[in-house]
Amino acid sequence: MADNPAEPSKSALKKAEKQAKMAADKAAKAAKQATVAVVGGKKTDDIIGITVSKTDNFSAWYQEVVLKAEMIEYYTEISGFFILRPSSMYIWNTIRKWFQERIEAMDVEEASFPMFLSSKSLEKEKDHVEGFAPELAWVTKAGDKDLEVPVAVRPTSEAVMYPYYSKWIRSHRDLPLRLNQWNSVVRWEAKQTTPFLRAREFLWQEGHTAHFTEELAGEEVLQILELYAGVYEQLLAVPVVRGRKTEKEKFAGGYYTTTVEGYIPSNGRGIQVEDPTPKADGVEKSPPIHVWQNSWGLSTRVIGVMVMIHGDDKGLVLPPRISKLQVIIIPVGINKKTTPEEKSKHYDQLQELKDTLKKEGVRADYDIRDSYTPAWKFNDWELKGVPIRLEYGPRDAAEKQVSYARRDTGEKGSLKIDSLASTVPALLEKIQNDMYTKAEANFRAHRIVINKWEEVVPALDAKNVVLIPHCLAEKCEDKIKNLTTGTQEEAEGPAELKAPSMGMKSLCIPFEQPEGLVKGETKCLNPECTALAEKWFASDGVDTSQSMRTTYTSVRDI
Amino acid sequence: MADNPAEPSKSALKKAEKQAKMAADKAAKAAKQATVAVVGGKKTDDIIGITVSKTDNFSAWYQEVVLKAEMIEYYTEISGFFILRPSSMYIWNTIRKWFQERIEAMDVEEASFPMFLSSKSLEKEKDHVEGFAPELAWVTKAGDKDLEVPVAVRPTSEAVMYPYYSKWIRSHRDLPLRLNQWNSVVRWEAKQTTPFLRAREFLWQEGHTAHFTEELAGEEVLQILELYAGVYEQLLAVPVVRGRKTEKEKFAGGYYTTTVEGYIPSNGRGIQVEDPTPKADGVEKSPPIHVWQNSWGLSTRVIGVMVMIHGDDKGLVLPPRISKLQVIIIPVGINKKTTPEEKSKHYDQLQELKDTLKKEGVRADYDIRDSYTPAWKFNDWELKGVPIRLEYGPRDAAEKQVSYARRDTGEKGSLKIDSLASTVPALLEKIQNDMYTKAEANFRAHRIVINKWEEVVPALDAKNVVLIPHCLAEKCEDKIKNLTTGTQEEAEGPAELKAPSMGMKSLCIPFEQPEGLVKGETKCLNPECTALAEKWFASDGVDTSQSMRTTYTSVRDI
Repeated sequence: MADNPAEPSKSALKKAEKQAKMAADKAAKAAKQATVAVVGGKKTDDIIGITVSKTDNFSAWYQEVVLKAEMIEYYTEISGFFILRPSSMYIWNTIRKWFQERIEAMDVEEASFPMFLSSKSLEKEKDHVEGFAPELAWVTKAGDKDLEVPVAVRPTSEAVMYPYYSKWIRSHRDLPLRLNQWNSVVRWEAKQTTPFLRAREFLWQEGHTAHFTEELAGEEVLQILELYAGVYEQLLAVPVVRGRKTEKEKFAGGYYTTTVEGYIPSNGRGIQVEDPTPKADGVEKSPPIHVWQNSWGLSTRVIGVMVMIHGDDKGLVLPPRISKLQVIIIPVGINKKTTPEEKSKHYDQLQELKDTLKKEGVRADYDIRDSYTPAWKFNDWELKGVPIRLEYGPRDAAEKQVSYARRDTGEKGSLKIDSLASTVPALLEKIQNDMYTKAEANFRAHRIVINKWEEVVPALDAKNVVLIPHCLAEKCEDKIKNLTTGTQEEAEGPAELKAPSMGMKSLCIPFEQPEGLVKGETKCLNPECTALAEKWFASDGVDTSQSMRTTYTSVRDI
Repeated sequence: MADNPAEPSKSALKKAEKQAKMAADKAAKAAKQATVAVVGGKKTDDIIGITVSKTDNFSAWYQEVVLKAEMIEYYTEISGFFILRPSSMYIWNTIRKWFQERIEAMDVEEASFPMFLSSKSLEKEKDHVEGFAPELAWVTKAGDKDLEVPVAVRPTSEAVMYPYYSKWIRSHRDLPLRLNQWNSVVRWEAKQTTPFLRAREFLWQEGHTAHFTEELAGEEVLQILELYAGVYEQLLAVPVVRGRKTEKEKFAGGYYTTTVEGYIPSNGRGIQVEDPTPKADGVEKSPPIHVWQNSWGLSTRVIGVMVMIHGDDKGLVLPPRISKLQVIIIPVGINKKTTPEEKSKHYDQLQELKDTLKKEGVRADYDIRDSYTPAWKFNDWELKGVPIRLEYGPRDAAEKQVSYARRDTGEKGSLKIDSLASTVPALLEKIQNDMYTKAEANFRAHRIVINKWEEVVPALDAKNVVLIPHCLAEKCEDKIKNLTTGTQEEAEGPAELKAPSMGMKSLCIPFEQPEGLVKGETKCLNPECTALAEKWFASDGVDTSQSMRTTYTSVRDI
């Protein structure tokens, strides 16, 4: 592979990674400090914006955006933890409500299990725990007394829940048993943390269900997968591909794992919904009951993906459906010559505009902070990603119109006040659709179907997801990773934010397969493999280093 | 006081308490074991019901009900923790939704702060921590590595949140700052735990808000108090009294504390919403900004109160508005003579009945488990508290009617099928109102306005809440407690479930005062006090032993 002119040398790679990491660290620090200058606002028009470009330094850009747009606050007391501020919680609650309604209709019930695991139940679920062991947070003391038996904060709830599934499922009549819970889990990651993408505590839902047959379990897997895709596509305006993980990438002990995969154009990375649910050994009972079990989870990670997909150099760009504030109305043309009466009358009109929009269910507000200029306010609300800005001055008033600016495209125009009740909701819907369409075009443009081995690495380096014909053998998958990587040591830092070229790694076997693979004829693209291709499989050039997936099925005796 | 013939001797009291405790422990154990026999169901009609009467052993009755009705499951892995099963989570989510809509309309925003406190922030909030220190769960290890600085799981989030309030509130323009979060908190209680009422982890919401003036803070306090009263009265059908805590009972450091107080007839105990929010010292900043701060919380404890108020010797009785299942339809008259065709047709009709009700928004289901008799099913659904049972047999079919039985009163009758869509929703609403009315009559009957000192202790012993004219001096309140108690040591076990006579303890100063107190004339009822009475105050005869309140205001420089 060293002969391949398209591949950069290992030392160059290492150097580039180190530089990227240093830049990211520096930017993160700057971002933390910047909050002081930003949160309260300044009376000048400067210092408010994002200081790095998305293209130049993706990682630093991302960290600045989520902080300055007031989505998160660093929890400086304990590293690796973040405060989710109201605009983030609005997004999460919108997702929660949307998803909850739909799983309720599927008769999935809600429960709340304790946040602690005993070492005894960890023992029972050994296979599961091994992966999480280094990340478990152990409570060893209550007050000033040592606990007789230390307890761990859940990194996921299998070990908490499964013993009760065994208790509650006494015969096949008790199936299906379908429980979901919304909570937070703790994984004391040693790796560098990043808001939303990798945090030591994060919010999620975890569904654990038991079914009578493989078929019934499989049906649910696809239903949930479709809901996850819906969260991305319909709410977050992020296109995804539905697929199955390869044998190598599926969760250990799982029967199979499905996934929805997105794509971050800025670093050429496929990105997946996280759901670290493990297989665990069955609890003995005589006679044991054979059940098919699913696990599925969706976390606040999706918010980070949305930020990465849509944000730009001015900051956050929010799809209207999940934006806490959809329309910000800003008075303009108010100056020293304006009399108090005129001003008061103008502000009354702002209230009328807001009321009109609110009546239509539009989440609207105005910004009448006296101490800031309109220009400062424009920047501030652009940074925060509000989909539509309405400007309203005396001249607009005279013409019975408002001026608008779209956050996603920057497009400007004017809207007649008497039709605002219909034009604004329509414009919001258009923005939502346009954002999805734009992201999808980008997504398609970067999914490259490849039939020649020598095109693989250049395509990965050009930040693409590649689809190749593959035999699906686990060994062959390993081999391909080696062929495209070299033996560099694993880089530190948030993998999610890095550029590719750390070796090709499979994302999934898409359910929708490209054409051109002839069973029994087409060969596996790996030049060192002699097998025939089974499926197209999709890969990116990053070592995701942590298993992540959406829905997962296993068999278990309980 | 030893001369007072109405007061039982100390040793008799102690003995009674010990007996009560032993009985409660035994019952709790029996309840835990009983789950095996109950959860999966038996094919006979026996063993399913509640084995103790509410009157004879209130504590044991309560623990059996919440377990056998499948509201909770004991988390046997770690003591003091409970699993909330779907019927409990349905209640909590109904409360959550109701409350969330209303605080959103008040512009309270949602946030999510980390679950851990650093010892540094605990240091800053010293006053606060002292009370919780013995109950803090300390994480000292991550994986197999000791943490440099141990962190505690939040018992409440003041110490987590306040530093960021100081950061975010940079001038009065940033006020009000109103954040709420829904989460779980951990208090490693040494006392005996009880489902819902006292658990080492519980779900709640905690609102922490900062205001410009005392008046604005005070307005919010009353708004929130009214919402808490609404949760009790409108959802849980539990009557409450709104009031202010006395200086002695308010939370330490708080400016004042308000509360809603219910009443449990079975033990004569006033019971309060829990909100253990402390005062904490301000963070220095120059110049400091003076803000008025509120804290308010509502926990899953309210579910326990609801169970205690409405339950009976057959088990749980749920108010329709919060019952996951409102109507259970049970086929009757199906026997050996029934042909498969007849049975199938009958079951189709059950589906039609269910569909009719579902269309009207009624949460209905049928129970066609073949292996159980109708009588067994009746018991089972009564135990679980479903408000209406509909029985449907061939005879009903012939008469185009269904038979019904109300869970709350046992009343039976029949309903015409063609008007079911209106009669069932109306009946549900009637049940909700009747349950409230009944509880309120009980509540009123046990609030005794007393003008003679010698009537106080007998009234407390007869399980009443007493209202007496009082000077509101803290010393006088202490004195009254002593006068009515003696010096017995504090009993163990869940105070919430015990009978009174441990000394009179103030509940609150009700906003709605009884008549008959003439300012400047009426004397404080304490015979050893010479002061004039300021207000009627309400007391019960139990040492609640832990400060609990609803909303709370303090002043703070940030």
